[in-house]
Amino acid sequence: MARLVMKFGGTSVADLDRIRRVARHVKREVDAGHQVAVVVSAMAGETNRLVELCRDASPMHDAREYDSIVASGEQVSSGILAIVLQAMGVDARSWLGWQITLKTDDAHGAARIADIDSKKLLERLDMGQVAVIAGFQGIAPDDRIATLGRGGSDTSAVAIAAAIEAERCDIYTDVDGVYTTDPRIVPQARRLDKVSFEEMLEMASSGAKVLQVRSVELAHVYNVRTFVRSSFTAPDDPSILNADIPPGTLICSEDEIVEQQVVTGIAYAKDEAQISLRRVPDTPGIAAKIFGPLADANINVDMIVQIVSESGNETDITFSTPASDFERAIETLNKAGFDDVGGDKGLVKVSVIGVGMRSHAGVAATAFKALSQKGINIIAITTSEIKISILIDAAYTELAVRTLHSVYGLDAE
Amino acid sequence: MARLVMKFGGTSVADLDRIRRVARHVKREVDAGHQVAVVVSAMAGETNRLVELCRDASPMHDAREYDSIVASGEQVSSGILAIVLQAMGVDARSWLGWQITLKTDDAHGAARIADIDSKKLLERLDMGQVAVIAGFQGIAPDDRIATLGRGGSDTSAVAIAAAIEAERCDIYTDVDGVYTTDPRIVPQARRLDKVSFEEMLEMASSGAKVLQVRSVELAHVYNVRTFVRSSFTAPDDPSILNADIPPGTLICSEDEIVEQQVVTGIAYAKDEAQISLRRVPDTPGIAAKIFGPLADANINVDMIVQIVSESGNETDITFSTPASDFERAIETLNKAGFDDVGGDKGLVKVSVIGVGMRSHAGVAATAFKALSQKGINIIAITTSEIKISILIDAAYTELAVRTLHSVYGLDAE
Repeated sequence: MARLVMKFGGTSVADLDRIRRVARHVKREVDAGHQVAVVVSAMAGETNRLVELCRDASPMHDAREYDSIVASGEQVSSGILAIVLQAMGVDARSWLGWQITLKTDDAHGAARIADIDSKKLLERLDMGQVAVIAGFQGIAPDDRIATLGRGGSDTSAVAIAAAIEAERCDIYTDVDGVYTTDPRIVPQARRLDKVSFEEMLEMASSGAKVLQVRSVELAHVYNVRTFVRSSFTAPDDPSILNADIPPGTLICSEDEIVEQQVVTGIAYAKDEAQISLRRVPDTPGIAAKIFGPLADANINVDMIVQIVSESGNETDITFSTPASDFERAIETLNKAGFDDVGGDKGLVKVSVIGVGMRSHAGVAATAFKALSQKGINIIAITTSEIKISILIDAAYTELAVRTLHSVYGLDAE
Repeated sequence: MARLVMKFGGTSVADLDRIRRVARHVKREVDAGHQVAVVVSAMAGETNRLVELCRDASPMHDAREYDSIVASGEQVSSGILAIVLQAMGVDARSWLGWQITLKTDDAHGAARIADIDSKKLLERLDMGQVAVIAGFQGIAPDDRIATLGRGGSDTSAVAIAAAIEAERCDIYTDVDGVYTTDPRIVPQARRLDKVSFEEMLEMASSGAKVLQVRSVELAHVYNVRTFVRSSFTAPDDPSILNADIPPGTLICSEDEIVEQQVVTGIAYAKDEAQISLRRVPDTPGIAAKIFGPLADANINVDMIVQIVSESGNETDITFSTPASDFERAIETLNKAGFDDVGGDKGLVKVSVIGVGMRSHAGVAATAFKALSQKGINIIAITTSEIKISILIDAAYTELAVRTLHSVYGLDAE
């Protein structure tokens, strides 16, 4: 017997037929003798409908009212799933954030989980009752409903799993796991059986959309084994019933991964921009003069490249930022007294990720050489212990991803 | 300065345009210096959509899940109204049942209000903030959401008004008051300026659909002056702005009504049925043998007529019941050993109501004579201190209502 958290997203509970399929997935685990907490998103489309209603009511709406309105989506889906489970003979009840209680900070609209009281949940789980938990919501210090930001149900699920010390958190989604890269670009992409928390974190931060970044952070901190699997596989499919490990990707600690690859995956993030400041005086404190005002304006700066001019008195500085911040960044720099500011919006950041890089030299050189052979110009580079990120012209996205996927031996045979 | 409760039903908040009109009604009262608590229903159609979703999930669903799901409708409408009020510069916030807290009993799906903690509401009202309260919902002793049954927002509004000691509870609805009878049947029907709690209670119980019966009971017990008025009148209409008393009907204590009529109104309730048991032994305890099993089966018995046969040993008993209980009632009686059971479903109960009856004799006789002159056969009669109810064939509904409305001098000149 194990204690499991099962999380189902909006497309998995889009209508009653799909909710019934979700219920059969839950029943399978209950019948296998497991204690089960289910975390659900709102029925697909519902959150968008409610967000739009708020916007139409007033573009500048109170985040506390927004939270109360939008959280109703999960209130409905959790209740309906509980009803469907009961109709199948499974003891179940719905739980709202304030009933658990799942406490958050006061950042309404994008709150962070502060504390989860697991006592009542554990009592019911011990009685064999399935807890159907409304994801994406909690209660703020002002006793009002708070939501965790889009995709927050992943975070709810991992946090609940940590709180009730679940053996595993199963994230049921519309893909059957985490791939070495986007299969729409590289048909030879392979599903990873296991990926470490650190790698998944870098992949999620670098554009892979399987999981919300914060949920991976939480999973890492609390060591929650998180299993990404398909909600569209039939609940009684032999690949689930008879396999030791059903199809999917386990996100876990490095120790659990025996055969570690040098490179695990290639991620990419579209809609990047670069901004260049030319001939700025190369004096101490110049970086602070540039990046201070940008930080104050909440503009995200990612890669920074500095090229000292031949004279040595001036320098060119280039940095990358999300395309959505491009205009605001230029405006901010102009206001800060920098006039010779230029840039470009159509860029993409391609990242090579793998914990094996720590012990292997030459990983970056392989990437640079392969891209250069394809005639792809590298605008900027950043590296971390387990990641190399390369900024290039977006036109080369597919070519670059395919080239890197192949050169690191990730293509399926 | 007064403290007011304003209640708006589902059709009044059906879309954003109507919610904005509601907000202007609220702003008018705030601008006049009043403290305002608003109670709202779900946007029209929303409750039905959610109820249907529950039914489709399972016809036999858990009332606690149903409550959690259906209460989300008011969670949305209260939040949206708060946003719209804020956009108009009116300080406002939404309140859910569990936030107030508004405690109910544990009869999920049709709960009764047990207690309202007015402290937090009064603090905010004193600060000049409008309280936008989700109607129809509270929190049961099990810490789960409970709903008050259809139309429960009227009850929420009156109960809130009692708890915060409001000067008046304004029920904004799609009619502009309480009429002497249904104007669709009698074009000469007049709007009543005032009607007593007792009369309104009898009218609501006898088929008038303006207010939920329980809300009138509460208003009576706590002496909440309840004003029924139109939500479709423009918020700045001169009839509201310049009048001492805007158009509408005040439901109040008898003492406030100076010129009391003998008869105040004529109500009717369709879909009544009669059931007759023929030749049952006229022995002590026979009534218990008949009506005991019916009560056990939760079948509502209204009027009872007993005619002793000529021999004196047997009796015919006729009673009325809602048509929806007809088949079940006959089945229950058959099971209880009564074989000679017949009946008829197409009946209507017409009621003549007025506190003036207490001091006037001959009111009933006038009704019987007038109906008999029109050739309308009376199947059964019940009377209370302030009401006469007459069961007749439904085909005569309009004729009977018009005849009684005219004979008691209620037609407008």
